[in-house]
Amino acid sequence: MSEYMINGVISDQVSVLDRGLHYGDGVFETFVAINDQLQHWDAHMQRLTLGCKRLKIPTPDANLLLKETQELLATQNNSSETSDRSTSTKLVKKNVVKIVVTRGVGARGYKPPTTTQVTRIVAAYPFPDYPERYYSEGVKLAVCETQLSCNPLLAGIKHLNRLEQVMAQDEWEDSAIVDGIMLNSDQHIIECTMSNIYWVTNNQLYTPDLSNCGVEGVTRANILKLAEELQLSITIGYFCMKDLLAADEVMISNSVFGVWPIRAIDQHNKQIGPVTLEIMQKLA
Amino acid sequence: MSEYMINGVISDQVSVLDRGLHYGDGVFETFVAINDQLQHWDAHMQRLTLGCKRLKIPTPDANLLLKETQELLATQNNSSETSDRSTSTKLVKKNVVKIVVTRGVGARGYKPPTTTQVTRIVAAYPFPDYPERYYSEGVKLAVCETQLSCNPLLAGIKHLNRLEQVMAQDEWEDSAIVDGIMLNSDQHIIECTMSNIYWVTNNQLYTPDLSNCGVEGVTRANILKLAEELQLSITIGYFCMKDLLAADEVMISNSVFGVWPIRAIDQHNKQIGPVTLEIMQKLA
Repeated sequence: MSEYMINGVISDQVSVLDRGLHYGDGVFETFVAINDQLQHWDAHMQRLTLGCKRLKIPTPDANLLLKETQELLATQNNSSETSDRSTSTKLVKKNVVKIVVTRGVGARGYKPPTTTQVTRIVAAYPFPDYPERYYSEGVKLAVCETQLSCNPLLAGIKHLNRLEQVMAQDEWEDSAIVDGIMLNSDQHIIECTMSNIYWVTNNQLYTPDLSNCGVEGVTRANILKLAEELQLSITIGYFCMKDLLAADEVMISNSVFGVWPIRAIDQHNKQIGPVTLEIMQKLA
Repeated sequence: MSEYMINGVISDQVSVLDRGLHYGDGVFETFVAINDQLQHWDAHMQRLTLGCKRLKIPTPDANLLLKETQELLATQNNSSETSDRSTSTKLVKKNVVKIVVTRGVGARGYKPPTTTQVTRIVAAYPFPDYPERYYSEGVKLAVCETQLSCNPLLAGIKHLNRLEQVMAQDEWEDSAIVDGIMLNSDQHIIECTMSNIYWVTNNQLYTPDLSNCGVEGVTRANILKLAEELQLSITIGYFCMKDLLAADEVMISNSVFGVWPIRAIDQHNKQIGPVTLEIMQKLA
């Protein structure tokens, strides 16, 4: 069961005038809560703040968002205690929290209102039931035909204009495929639909440049920091599919599942390698 | 006063799980209703259908949308009769209708649900109080710094990913500016934030190519058809600001205001010309 809190009130309804609905005029964050512990809270709040600043949306007070998230999780964990006895985790409650901040309600028209009352949405979802083999045996990726468009103004942040990701995820039906690689119009690899991507060639770590499109993942920042500590050579740039397919190891990351090794990209099989295993182990 | 109907029911609330809110996963249409007469209804339904098909969203039945729009307008016009005596039009009720169709509610994650129940939103707003001089003396445009990103998949249709238009309209504060010209990353003119743009040079009509970005306006289609009837030479292509600034006449159009001549683009003054006047007169 999922729970939602809107502007501090438990509710599952938003105003039909919300600019999030009409224009995708807002930002979001998704992260994991283990019991009442919010994973990488500060980093998610930093990116939320960056997104709000970029879109000139007033940033909600992080302490208010924290209070609302904790209240919602208490409700969620209580309700799952009483109603969901089928859960395999009886002591550890693991949820995915999504926080959405929009520019609030507004009249018809794109122009932001002169005074903004942002809409705060906090949603708690049960943690997805990912198979353990995704971590031990790796996962399979598709290569998407849907392109990511470039706009430096919107790059890096997690805004609500996500039709390209929706259309990309609609491309495959094979349930063995867990994510899809997305390219820009120059055929450069940017990211996957819901994760960042990395590969290792000759013991060097590569990941795409996200200054023109893509989302700068919180886990990506952690991986890059870790790679530095491990004294791995890191190259951030523009690469094509042939670079990726020639790699020794490939991995993807996001804030919910962490890191998954890649065992196949379409018909191309990949091996799980030592760098991926070390990063997975150190991040865990 | 504005009225809203959601899935056939008068309401101002939508589900917090609506994919329109989370991803901008939907399309919209905006047009004018004069009393119960819906202007260019068939053309708007055609574009809505095109948008739904492109995004693989089931297209709602146009007759159902028509019935809901008419019901809503009856409510809106009755309520304005009793409550709004200040309106200058006592016999003619003029409203702006916005229809939004989203992929409906869904679980967390970009992937479209296997079965979709679309959300239908019909909203009726009082017609904006545009000054008559906008038509007789022309309006002023800014040139926006916010770029339009290119993606042929999303070009032409009126989808809900509209952050670029929001950010562009946020660029100017001068109330004399009514719209802003938007360029792509190659500095080619595409459209204005809420209208299509045209110009006349040596009696030839020019308007940007919209196959990679931009919205194919219903009024644009009408203007191009009319220009053909008037045996004007029409060039649709990629042009830069210097082409536009060198033009003899400039005009913009959308489905709400129709056609406005341009009297200035930033500091560059323009004259209202005979082609613009003829198009305005024939379309009226």
